[in-house]
Amino acid sequence: MQVYNFNAGPAAMPREVILKAQAEFADYHGCGYSIIEESHRAAPFDEIIQAAEANLRKLLDIPENYDVLFLQGGASLQFAMIPMNLQVPGKKIGYADTGVWANKAIKEIDIQGLDKEVVFNGKDINYTEIQGIKDWKIDQDLAYFGICVNNTIYGTEYPVFPETGNVPLVADMSSDILSRKFDVKKFGLIFAGAQKNVGPAGLTLVIIRKDLAERCPANVPTMLRYSTHMEAKSLYNTPPTFAIYMHRLITDWMLENGGLDAMEKLDDLKAKTLYDFIDNSGFYRATAAPSSRSRMNVCFRLPTEDQEKAFIAYAKQNGLVGLKGHRKVGGCRASIYNAVPLAGVERLIEVMKDFQKQA
Amino acid sequence: MQVYNFNAGPAAMPREVILKAQAEFADYHGCGYSIIEESHRAAPFDEIIQAAEANLRKLLDIPENYDVLFLQGGASLQFAMIPMNLQVPGKKIGYADTGVWANKAIKEIDIQGLDKEVVFNGKDINYTEIQGIKDWKIDQDLAYFGICVNNTIYGTEYPVFPETGNVPLVADMSSDILSRKFDVKKFGLIFAGAQKNVGPAGLTLVIIRKDLAERCPANVPTMLRYSTHMEAKSLYNTPPTFAIYMHRLITDWMLENGGLDAMEKLDDLKAKTLYDFIDNSGFYRATAAPSSRSRMNVCFRLPTEDQEKAFIAYAKQNGLVGLKGHRKVGGCRASIYNAVPLAGVERLIEVMKDFQKQA
Repeated sequence: MQVYNFNAGPAAMPREVILKAQAEFADYHGCGYSIIEESHRAAPFDEIIQAAEANLRKLLDIPENYDVLFLQGGASLQFAMIPMNLQVPGKKIGYADTGVWANKAIKEIDIQGLDKEVVFNGKDINYTEIQGIKDWKIDQDLAYFGICVNNTIYGTEYPVFPETGNVPLVADMSSDILSRKFDVKKFGLIFAGAQKNVGPAGLTLVIIRKDLAERCPANVPTMLRYSTHMEAKSLYNTPPTFAIYMHRLITDWMLENGGLDAMEKLDDLKAKTLYDFIDNSGFYRATAAPSSRSRMNVCFRLPTEDQEKAFIAYAKQNGLVGLKGHRKVGGCRASIYNAVPLAGVERLIEVMKDFQKQA
Repeated sequence: MQVYNFNAGPAAMPREVILKAQAEFADYHGCGYSIIEESHRAAPFDEIIQAAEANLRKLLDIPENYDVLFLQGGASLQFAMIPMNLQVPGKKIGYADTGVWANKAIKEIDIQGLDKEVVFNGKDINYTEIQGIKDWKIDQDLAYFGICVNNTIYGTEYPVFPETGNVPLVADMSSDILSRKFDVKKFGLIFAGAQKNVGPAGLTLVIIRKDLAERCPANVPTMLRYSTHMEAKSLYNTPPTFAIYMHRLITDWMLENGGLDAMEKLDDLKAKTLYDFIDNSGFYRATAAPSSRSRMNVCFRLPTEDQEKAFIAYAKQNGLVGLKGHRKVGGCRASIYNAVPLAGVERLIEVMKDFQKQA
């Protein structure tokens, strides 16, 4: 039976990438051992990390005055590192509260004793919509302004980005990076846990405008300073070599399959196909407001919780896994990252139709 | 040609483990996809992380009042996290300076503005020996006392541990954990980057006496507090799932192959065989003092630097890779972690003999 993996992260990777990694796992390019056993200072890994950076620069058209870093610790460590590094004495940090992950980032600002200004608060509407983005008033005296671009738990995504003027825009793109085009120059710092759209767990991407790293106070530990990793080209200490290797293969795959244009087009089509089916089903109900619907995580409900449980079990029997919603909100969620093919979405719709008939 | 990998880390893994990981890489236990694509909240990964902890507890006989954590960031992040968490207002932190890694840990104490007391300074003897360990006077008013147990760059290793009384002993065991028996109860905290003896890069093990986590000041970021990861059983955020999976397979392999008794015996034999050959060669020269020689990283010199270069190239032609010494000290280094078989050491000696004959 063909299995489709709709997990929210760690998540599906392109089948071709998995098979390639398997084929060369025990003997990398004829060296006699695995790439997972290779020194991070040896030529084969040097080629990998350079190719990974070049791929990312090509896919996202990253300007020269931005560095690309391969770090560890996930977006959750970035929630702490960003205020540590980008704070400015006497200035507040701005944030938009669009759900759990934005909330966690805001909490770290408090823990560090820094002042904040929350510009949008989606709590009262259960985070089902990101409202009025173009009308947000961004105080030009903020140290930076932070957003979580795609909210996996609630299935919302910024359709456009706020205009922050001279205030550096800091964006958590953990769950939608490399799914659509955007202008890197509009951002001060972009970060992403790789384990959703672009690699395995254990790798965190950071794209940082170089000048911002100069703000960092002297008492920030070495490993938590962006400048440490910028100067060392992500090799200050041993990086997560195998995760970077997988990320390289995945970005190779993206380039071989039409780059960001093709990814965006396919992701839009997959999301539209699934939302259209849900909206017209008379049975399933999408939870996010149409204006803010995530193209990556499609959250939906059935008429009753019992039916949701039954549907998730039925889907699993039919080879569709990872459809349970996040424990904070319940319901169902289909994460349809780049690596989930259109055929996976079509199969999901078939199974949803079959379940509806018998419900 | 049979290749042997003597890299200092990332390093050789047991061949059986590599082949097993390869065999099940594309379809984990019949689930239809790779374990690297599996959710960290799903049952298959839950089984893996629990088995990994159970293996480690069994191998090291870890008492109930210690937690085992699977973290990210390497030993270098621990250099910062340990003083952040284990500081005590008004108390100094003690450390023994046995080389580069101990030095980096000491530097982080300074960066955080904490007071330190360096008990042993090996710099004047080029870090070739760890002298007088049993005679070190450990001030009983220290917050904790830190050591780096095995010094990969200089090829030294503590033959015994200092007696620290009531002062918690904090040990960096990155490069020799699970190579010999020791009493966990003598330590307050043990940490290890996994990428040498026990897994791939991207995973950091921490074994912590539970009460020590209570010291942490309130302004330490969430991800940098041990208590966060203790409460969440290493699942506060997405852990490096594939690295934990590999660590589990490696600890399975250790248990299947006689556990720590067998590892220690074999590691001792491999090291003795290689040092004996070097000492009796009349050509090669071990750099570490006999009292402090590492059983993991055998550092040695040839009569001239040109001969060293020629030897490293000759060994590579004969399938022996990773023999170059660390760039800080030059020379040669054979890292003979658990996964390097005795046959690898014997082959190295053969090649060293051949090279000596023609030199």
